[in-house]
Amino acid sequence: MALIVQKYGGTSMGSPERIREVAKRVAHYHALGHQLVVVPSAMAGETNRLLALAKELNPEPHGRELDVIASTGEQVSVGLLALALQNLGLKARSYTGWQVKIQTDSAYTKARIVAIDDSLIRRDLAEGFICVVAGFQGVDEDGNITTLGRGGSDTTGVALAAALQADECQIFTDVDGVYTTDPRVVPEARKLEQITFEEMFELASLGSKVLQIRSVEFAGKYKVKLRVLSSFTPHDSNDTGTLITYEEENAMEQPVIAGIAFNRDEAKLTITGVPDRPGIAYAILGPIAEANIDVDVIIQNTSHEGLTDFSFTVHRNEYNKALDILNQQVRDQIQARGVTGDNKIAKVSIVGIGMRSHAGVAAKMFAALAKENVNIQMISTSEIKTSVVLDEKYMELAVRALHDAFELDKAPVA
Amino acid sequence: MALIVQKYGGTSMGSPERIREVAKRVAHYHALGHQLVVVPSAMAGETNRLLALAKELNPEPHGRELDVIASTGEQVSVGLLALALQNLGLKARSYTGWQVKIQTDSAYTKARIVAIDDSLIRRDLAEGFICVVAGFQGVDEDGNITTLGRGGSDTTGVALAAALQADECQIFTDVDGVYTTDPRVVPEARKLEQITFEEMFELASLGSKVLQIRSVEFAGKYKVKLRVLSSFTPHDSNDTGTLITYEEENAMEQPVIAGIAFNRDEAKLTITGVPDRPGIAYAILGPIAEANIDVDVIIQNTSHEGLTDFSFTVHRNEYNKALDILNQQVRDQIQARGVTGDNKIAKVSIVGIGMRSHAGVAAKMFAALAKENVNIQMISTSEIKTSVVLDEKYMELAVRALHDAFELDKAPVA
Repeated sequence: MALIVQKYGGTSMGSPERIREVAKRVAHYHALGHQLVVVPSAMAGETNRLLALAKELNPEPHGRELDVIASTGEQVSVGLLALALQNLGLKARSYTGWQVKIQTDSAYTKARIVAIDDSLIRRDLAEGFICVVAGFQGVDEDGNITTLGRGGSDTTGVALAAALQADECQIFTDVDGVYTTDPRVVPEARKLEQITFEEMFELASLGSKVLQIRSVEFAGKYKVKLRVLSSFTPHDSNDTGTLITYEEENAMEQPVIAGIAFNRDEAKLTITGVPDRPGIAYAILGPIAEANIDVDVIIQNTSHEGLTDFSFTVHRNEYNKALDILNQQVRDQIQARGVTGDNKIAKVSIVGIGMRSHAGVAAKMFAALAKENVNIQMISTSEIKTSVVLDEKYMELAVRALHDAFELDKAPVA
Repeated sequence: MALIVQKYGGTSMGSPERIREVAKRVAHYHALGHQLVVVPSAMAGETNRLLALAKELNPEPHGRELDVIASTGEQVSVGLLALALQNLGLKARSYTGWQVKIQTDSAYTKARIVAIDDSLIRRDLAEGFICVVAGFQGVDEDGNITTLGRGGSDTTGVALAAALQADECQIFTDVDGVYTTDPRVVPEARKLEQITFEEMFELASLGSKVLQIRSVEFAGKYKVKLRVLSSFTPHDSNDTGTLITYEEENAMEQPVIAGIAFNRDEAKLTITGVPDRPGIAYAILGPIAEANIDVDVIIQNTSHEGLTDFSFTVHRNEYNKALDILNQQVRDQIQARGVTGDNKIAKVSIVGIGMRSHAGVAAKMFAALAKENVNIQMISTSEIKTSVVLDEKYMELAVRALHDAFELDKAPVA
């Protein structure tokens, strides 16, 4: 018998029929003798519907009221799922965030969990209840309702698993695990039986979007065993999804590269002929940060005759805003030669713990791209990731070439 | 400057446009210097949508979970209304039932308010905030969410007014006050400037449905000044709706009859040739009560040769069930001659405090009906009400004749 926290996403909770399926899946695990805490998201589309109503009444809504409104989506879900479980003859009880209580700070719409009181849940579990706890929400110390931001139900699930010292936190979603890359781009993409937290983190932040980044971080910090599973496979299929592990546990068995992430949402900006002197990076990126534009990749090459080129990428939606800032506020001030930009780029990254101990991984990546005549515009590296920026039209080609070069379609030999 | 509690119904909150209108109306009262506590209902249709979802997942849903689900309708409303008020530049803050807190007993789906903590609201009002409090909901002493039953937002408004000792509780609805009868039946129906709690209570319980009965009872008990107003008139129209007063305040000014109520939802059952002996009424109505069928009018006439006829009315939906019980369980047991019934009846009632002190009111009613050749099937009287049961095809004719006979189209002379 294990204590399992299961989180079900909005698509899994998307209709009464889907909720009945979730209930049957929970019942299946219950019948195996497990104690269960279930964290459902709002029904698919509900949070957007509620936020649209709010925006219609106030284009700049106060976070406190937004959270009062948005948190109802998950409140409805816990009630409905508890009813569906009771309809199967099971003992189930729902809890909102404040009822548990899941205490957060007061950062409305993006609150962080500060503490979880597990007493009610432990009491209920001991009495044979399945506890259904609202994801995405909490309460601050003054009793205001808060939400954890998009995807926050993952964080709720992981935080509950940490607080309850659960044996496993299972994230049920509409994919059946973490793949070496997006199967829509590479049909040979393979489901990973396991992946390290560090790799998962890099894959998630690069856009693999299987799990919310913060929940992965949180799970790593509290050593919560996290498993990604599909809520669309038959509930007795014995599918084990992808287990997210710790590096130190089994680093020897890790393949060099775990997967390939890609992202088409970026745009590139370059300031050319920048006088290379101290403070230049800040002079360029300071105004960008002040405009609340997040910068991803930053590249500055060595200077040539006292001049250098400085490039960075931003989200494509902020390309025009960033371009205006460079042209109007930055260029003349730093006496740069010019400003160029390109919003038809893509970023492709190889991610793997094994990179640290294996030389030549980046070289192998560049060779594979060269073989396909794909020009690399920018390169950025971190300990377990190498990213390249390239013309977006080559993106799929690059991902397929890399998937093939690193033989990701083959299961690793233990 | 007054402290006013305003309650807005579901139709008034039916869309973002309507919510904006409510906000403007609240702003109008705020500009007049009043302190305001506003209690909105769920957006029209929302509670039904939520309950339908619940029933789909569990045909016999547990009240605790139903209340978790249903209470979200009002929670969304308070957030949206607070945002709309903030958008007009006003200071506003929303509260759920548990945040206030509005403490109730644990009778899920029909809980009663036990106590209200007014400290947060008083603090906010003192700081110039408009408080927007969720109607229809509360929290029991174990922290479970409860709801007060249909129309419970009226009760919330009145209870808050009582707790805060507000100067007035204004119920905004889709009618602009209480009328002498339904204007759809009698075009000359007149809006009453005031009506007593007792009359209002009889009119509400007879189906006038302007206010929830329990809220009227509650207001009477705590002497809350209650006013019914329309949320569809221009907000600066100076419409004063209908004020609900206490009998003792101005009994001298009361007209004899305040209004005429009618109800087409009833059915009549008669057991004929009942041996007139002690315990017969219980022998007949006991099995009906056990089947959870509410009985309205009960008539037993004096016996003739030891036999009497016993009649009562029930809701039309329960007619067949009641008929079966009489035929299968009651008739033979009490050795009655037969059972008859009629589900094509209507009940028409005249209501007025003045009846108590004016003789001949009932006689005037019967005369008016006789003049129109309307046959009276049953008569039932109380201190401030006289009801007749008649063939439903005569209902409108009877209501018009009585409205005319009691000159309800004319304003009373003070």
